[in-house]
Amino acid sequence: MSSYSHHTAPTQFVEAAGIRFAYRRFGKNGSVPLLFFMHFTGTMDHWDPALTDGFAQDREVILFNNAGISSSSGEVPTSIEEMAKYAGAFIDALGIKKLDALGFSMGGFIAQQFSMDRPDLVRKLILVGNGPRSGEGMASLTPEAQEIFGAKYDPPDELWLRVFFTPSKQSQAAGKKYLERQRARKENRDAVANDRVAQAQIAAIQKWGAPAKAPYAYLKKIPQPTLVVNGSNDVIVYTVNSFILQQNLPNAQLILYPDGNHGAQYQYPELFVEHVTQFLKR
Amino acid sequence: MSSYSHHTAPTQFVEAAGIRFAYRRFGKNGSVPLLFFMHFTGTMDHWDPALTDGFAQDREVILFNNAGISSSSGEVPTSIEEMAKYAGAFIDALGIKKLDALGFSMGGFIAQQFSMDRPDLVRKLILVGNGPRSGEGMASLTPEAQEIFGAKYDPPDELWLRVFFTPSKQSQAAGKKYLERQRARKENRDAVANDRVAQAQIAAIQKWGAPAKAPYAYLKKIPQPTLVVNGSNDVIVYTVNSFILQQNLPNAQLILYPDGNHGAQYQYPELFVEHVTQFLKR
Repeated sequence: MSSYSHHTAPTQFVEAAGIRFAYRRFGKNGSVPLLFFMHFTGTMDHWDPALTDGFAQDREVILFNNAGISSSSGEVPTSIEEMAKYAGAFIDALGIKKLDALGFSMGGFIAQQFSMDRPDLVRKLILVGNGPRSGEGMASLTPEAQEIFGAKYDPPDELWLRVFFTPSKQSQAAGKKYLERQRARKENRDAVANDRVAQAQIAAIQKWGAPAKAPYAYLKKIPQPTLVVNGSNDVIVYTVNSFILQQNLPNAQLILYPDGNHGAQYQYPELFVEHVTQFLKR
Repeated sequence: MSSYSHHTAPTQFVEAAGIRFAYRRFGKNGSVPLLFFMHFTGTMDHWDPALTDGFAQDREVILFNNAGISSSSGEVPTSIEEMAKYAGAFIDALGIKKLDALGFSMGGFIAQQFSMDRPDLVRKLILVGNGPRSGEGMASLTPEAQEIFGAKYDPPDELWLRVFFTPSKQSQAAGKKYLERQRARKENRDAVANDRVAQAQIAAIQKWGAPAKAPYAYLKKIPQPTLVVNGSNDVIVYTVNSFILQQNLPNAQLILYPDGNHGAQYQYPELFVEHVTQFLKR
């Protein structure tokens, strides 16, 4: 067990593919590490310590900023494929030969691509708030997402109360607790991602979501045991997309949580850690 | 803890609503009991001891034959509503005031109705291999079910290898283990249900599945926390019906298992017991 936690793990750096990647690494040494793939405009500080520290009890946890994001150098590429390539370069530079991957939202798109590209590297895959290429309502931002991302919030991070949680009293209360947990790291926080990040990521997300022929066929190329998790009422990546993932992946389990939006794993953090831990242990 | 288990629990009898109900009761005394609702043509002996004994570690387990089935007297009614009423009479006769309900396939239809009728009695609900009224492909037996139930099997209980498990090697191997477990009770087994049972149950199932206006609206009347579980490829009650249940119930979690047919809980018995136990503990 490293003595570091979500709040105390130092930001480290490694060079690969012309990028200086920022990352943090903590938890139980010697296990298959769990690599986290972050969502749209997020940095390492957007992960919920209830998850990262929860998983760190049993395994090593690796957070990173992909190319062009916050404390990492370079520019954000405009395709999911290039993002997955950068992630591979980062992992190779760390000398890691086997890992489990957890991707949330856009991070799940990257994790899907990464698992296809690097089947020997990725043992198991967890996809949260996620959908397939050309999924339902994924050709552009959903109407709900346009409204939510278009509004102003004070403080700005209250945006996430609407992106990740439902309007119910219980879900909003859970959302406030998530924000408190997420804000609790005080030292050495990541700078907020700049506007160029959002533009490039939107371009990549729209290519991923664009209509295509037989769009789900590629999922057969992801043989890894996969756990798909979402909320019952995801308005950012519609929940049905998680069902479509499960139905088309060769070996996937689906879990949907009640009264949940895009970030249901932050609404039920203990349950989510239990479910994922069970899945990784089997 | 009662000293009885799935294999040793004696068949007991209680009179209610003009029926002599056969039942078995075992597990940890003093807890909220878990009442099992059986599928089409099944008796108490069709339950998997890996499940019943698994749950009995933490709680009391109650199995029963509803009116007209095997060792219970009377005639099988031709509606799910009447089946639910008989179940209520049985439970009242035992003097039970609070329980959790687990229904599998047709048993899940009864458990839904029972939870609506008796909201004070039912604390939590588990629906396995299940769907809503008027669900997809539920107006009659699915083409796959017609073929599977129409074929001959030797021994006859190998029918369940095709009803509950997928054609994959892994699933069929798990199916054979289920049959071994299910056959292992030697003393005091239930007689196989007679042909009148199947006829009446088919009539009830077809009424339940018949097309209707706004068929899922009734699900709003099931406020109990509900766990919906199915296999990824249920050909008896199509898997999408479990998704529809989750989407329309006020407070439901969904779990779908990979490479699973109608009886995925018997394919992954330890995982299922873990998932249900988590759900009941929360």
